[in-house]
Amino acid sequence: MEEFSNERLGRLTGMLKRRGVILPAFEIHGGAAGLYDFGPVGGRLRNRVNQNWINHWQSLGNIVEISCPTVTPYAVLEASGHVGEFSDYLTECQKCGEASRADHLIEDEYPNADALSKDELSKLIAKHNPECPNCGDCSWGQIEAQNLMFNTKIGAGTSGRQGFLRPETAQGMFTSFTSIYRHFRERLPFGAVQTGKGYRNEISPRQGMIRLREFNMAELEYFIDPEVQPNHDFSLWNNEVTLLADGSGEISMTIGNAVQQGIIRHPTVGFFMGWTMDFLTNVGINPNHLRFRQHESDEMAHYAEDCWDAEIFGSYGWVECVGIAHRGCYDLAAHEDATGQRLRAWRTFDEPKVVEIDGWTIDGAKAGPAFRALAGQVKSAVEEMSSDTSFPKTIAIDGIDVEILAEHVKRVQRTENVNGEWFIPHVVEPAFGIDRIIWHLLDHSYTETEKSGEDYTLLTLPEAIAPVDVTVLPLYEKDGMGELAQTIHRDLCGRKDVFSVYDASGSIGRRYARADEIGVPWCITIDHDSLTDNSVTLRSRDSGEQVRVSIDDLPF
Amino acid sequence: MEEFSNERLGRLTGMLKRRGVILPAFEIHGGAAGLYDFGPVGGRLRNRVNQNWINHWQSLGNIVEISCPTVTPYAVLEASGHVGEFSDYLTECQKCGEASRADHLIEDEYPNADALSKDELSKLIAKHNPECPNCGDCSWGQIEAQNLMFNTKIGAGTSGRQGFLRPETAQGMFTSFTSIYRHFRERLPFGAVQTGKGYRNEISPRQGMIRLREFNMAELEYFIDPEVQPNHDFSLWNNEVTLLADGSGEISMTIGNAVQQGIIRHPTVGFFMGWTMDFLTNVGINPNHLRFRQHESDEMAHYAEDCWDAEIFGSYGWVECVGIAHRGCYDLAAHEDATGQRLRAWRTFDEPKVVEIDGWTIDGAKAGPAFRALAGQVKSAVEEMSSDTSFPKTIAIDGIDVEILAEHVKRVQRTENVNGEWFIPHVVEPAFGIDRIIWHLLDHSYTETEKSGEDYTLLTLPEAIAPVDVTVLPLYEKDGMGELAQTIHRDLCGRKDVFSVYDASGSIGRRYARADEIGVPWCITIDHDSLTDNSVTLRSRDSGEQVRVSIDDLPF
Repeated sequence: MEEFSNERLGRLTGMLKRRGVILPAFEIHGGAAGLYDFGPVGGRLRNRVNQNWINHWQSLGNIVEISCPTVTPYAVLEASGHVGEFSDYLTECQKCGEASRADHLIEDEYPNADALSKDELSKLIAKHNPECPNCGDCSWGQIEAQNLMFNTKIGAGTSGRQGFLRPETAQGMFTSFTSIYRHFRERLPFGAVQTGKGYRNEISPRQGMIRLREFNMAELEYFIDPEVQPNHDFSLWNNEVTLLADGSGEISMTIGNAVQQGIIRHPTVGFFMGWTMDFLTNVGINPNHLRFRQHESDEMAHYAEDCWDAEIFGSYGWVECVGIAHRGCYDLAAHEDATGQRLRAWRTFDEPKVVEIDGWTIDGAKAGPAFRALAGQVKSAVEEMSSDTSFPKTIAIDGIDVEILAEHVKRVQRTENVNGEWFIPHVVEPAFGIDRIIWHLLDHSYTETEKSGEDYTLLTLPEAIAPVDVTVLPLYEKDGMGELAQTIHRDLCGRKDVFSVYDASGSIGRRYARADEIGVPWCITIDHDSLTDNSVTLRSRDSGEQVRVSIDDLPF
Repeated sequence: MEEFSNERLGRLTGMLKRRGVILPAFEIHGGAAGLYDFGPVGGRLRNRVNQNWINHWQSLGNIVEISCPTVTPYAVLEASGHVGEFSDYLTECQKCGEASRADHLIEDEYPNADALSKDELSKLIAKHNPECPNCGDCSWGQIEAQNLMFNTKIGAGTSGRQGFLRPETAQGMFTSFTSIYRHFRERLPFGAVQTGKGYRNEISPRQGMIRLREFNMAELEYFIDPEVQPNHDFSLWNNEVTLLADGSGEISMTIGNAVQQGIIRHPTVGFFMGWTMDFLTNVGINPNHLRFRQHESDEMAHYAEDCWDAEIFGSYGWVECVGIAHRGCYDLAAHEDATGQRLRAWRTFDEPKVVEIDGWTIDGAKAGPAFRALAGQVKSAVEEMSSDTSFPKTIAIDGIDVEILAEHVKRVQRTENVNGEWFIPHVVEPAFGIDRIIWHLLDHSYTETEKSGEDYTLLTLPEAIAPVDVTVLPLYEKDGMGELAQTIHRDLCGRKDVFSVYDASGSIGRRYARADEIGVPWCITIDHDSLTDNSVTLRSRDSGEQVRVSIDDLPF
């Protein structure tokens, strides 16, 4: 795949900056590593890809969109595990003080260095003694785990509390579970999507849009009953896809077959891989540069049952752009544990079950006066105790020690008809890096060619996400052609989902080239004839064909 | 306007929470003041209002959308004045430690307390001795200015730099000026819009969605040549609007007349007031609860030439929801000063001007060898010097003192034809608080009535922003009605810009009520006849009318 050279990457990056698609943020102030702008052309591209993603998932019929704050209290990210676990290993150059990721320093010598432990990294850095990417010196400090969340303080003065910028949008869907469950009238399966900013205070950002400190994320949390076998239609995807399966190497196979053979370990994971593939190709990712890689067992989070990355090939090699993970009940259970709130769904049994109850309850006549306001909590605690509990017994309620005497309790032995049970739903999570996807669709659609012996570039963007739908060009700005062109341009801008650009500078050929360079699918030229016969020339970016149409018949 | 009672506010807030429209964020973890979620119904409402806003401005034909990071380096917000100026006065209760805004403590005694100085606030608090809203005590500490930006650190270790979460989206448009100017082929006027999160670390958030710590903003920065008289069409607005003009009190007048009479001091400000009014009423704001209030001279930023707030009346009284400010050249000039980069537009004179040049340049033969690499910078410096400069003269270049002798320079006296000049464009900025607007459109559309003697509520939301377009209801989930309803529901979800909800629980009347409560404009009922004649019942929220239509003729 030699089409992706470093020279081409330089030309593409230059064009994206010059034309206002993607450019380093705050550059007049010296810039800031890992922060990018979507400029006057890129802004609508980002918006359309984002909205396209939301529509794609909502079309499943049981998906809602939610929107939560990015500033997140400490307790939420402590419960999710991010306070403890979300870190990279950092080491500082002893000469210039620049911080580097320890695994990056030795990645040429050691593949998958990001999976190494602190000790292993220390040994390998001592052995290979890498150069500082900033100053070239080779003396390194201690390796330290560095939490990657941006810190902040919520509130002012001594009443301020620690918080973080969210590292992912997912937690808002988990903390909103009850509201979503109610919205779907308590019927699984269902999902919630959220798009928006995620933050990761990278130690050393690099590779342009690939490793950002602030990025556009899009995640679906899909809640399922683990005891219900899903019934997905895999006939939607009859083409073979490239799978790098854990232990099996690279294989070509339909998604349906991979599910059937147990290579993809859960049908919903497989279904979402197909649905993801559709999205990616709809927005302009070349399917020949797409593959799915299964996480190896030691790479996957301990609670995950299966995880596949969609990787896209481009100027930076193969890059992970989507992760589709079966996360079991981990997330809801973690927030339940931390908050004591029920984050469960109700499962009605096909037939009521007869359950033997053998345990304890309180004797209201004695316990009521004894425990007063705490009686309810004592009752709940006692009913959780096993039948072999002996009394008196002291328990803590709200930090207060309470002694329960034998006279406060009664033995309960009976059978009960139970209609169902509360359980923690499992979660399948497709998580998308929108910036990486936008980068690759630009990378794949950037086409360098020649026209009349001169270099010529175009972006072959799908119409559904092209940031400019149409350019309106008056042949000259005189004799009323400029005014007519402006009228048509404004009329188009006022139509639903249409964005037009007016361009009157330079020759028509030069203006077509300018439109092609940013992937405008259609150009409209207004000439002298337009003034009398109400017709214009409509030119297609992809075919280069020009047809004469009436202004009233423009296809927008 | 007694329709907005506290009791009604309580019922509305309860409904919004119960139905998943707007709810306190992270509530299972104890919540966080000033942070709200848009839930499973509110998420799409937020998205649609936002997109509607973008489309409304883009339809002007010379507006582009951009998207910049929220994490912002110190230098950017120092240049904009936010590091120095963006603060409120805080005081802490000496008993419980809770921080309060000093002006809020005395606002019952003193109107417009937020305009008071630190000294005035100290005196008034000493005089009135207000109670702490948290504990009721009356002993207050020193009053301190508290910067309202959320702090964070960009990068890790000793190479980390101070940054903030942006307090507004505007700065990204100013720092991107050059890119936007190039996009519009260097022709004013043009504008850039940005929507997204803004942050303000409020000392004491209150009033639900009105005073948030993280909010949805939408801003337009519109760049104009101050020497060109704009030509706006005010005939778009023939209705009289309520204006609270600086010095004139409340008047009713068309926007065009107010511009003509100089009450609105700049035509573009007036045009944007009209354009804003259209947006607000399109998304469901009651025009009878809308007014424009002009800032008084001492309330306005010193550089502003005119500023009008769109205020909306609802459950919290009159609330500022939009600010439309003529900001002069302040912002671009501030970033120019801080960075030394040119943030200007070129103005071509109608006819070239003859300009007398009387000054200095360098004598290349002597100055070249003398200053070597610095010669270019010396030349620029010398050419800026006035004709009465005497040499030798010492200047600093890049921190180095350079002595310029008489032999290094030559006097220049000539006339030159100049075709134009660089100037700093002026800016007119409409800035919208999207959360406040969403709050008010819900407040205005919430209708409490009776049906068959029982309380009945509905949201009369415009179809353009209703979060659910249609609810699909099988009469029963048997005999194939459930399956047909699911098929119709999924088909609708797959259509462009259509979002359907499937609801099969409870009586049809109960389900209509549930849909009306969140403002679903249409309900489709599938009954036994649907199975044979392919027709369904289509019910309108607003008229209550029910008509029988073929599935193929559904109006979505």
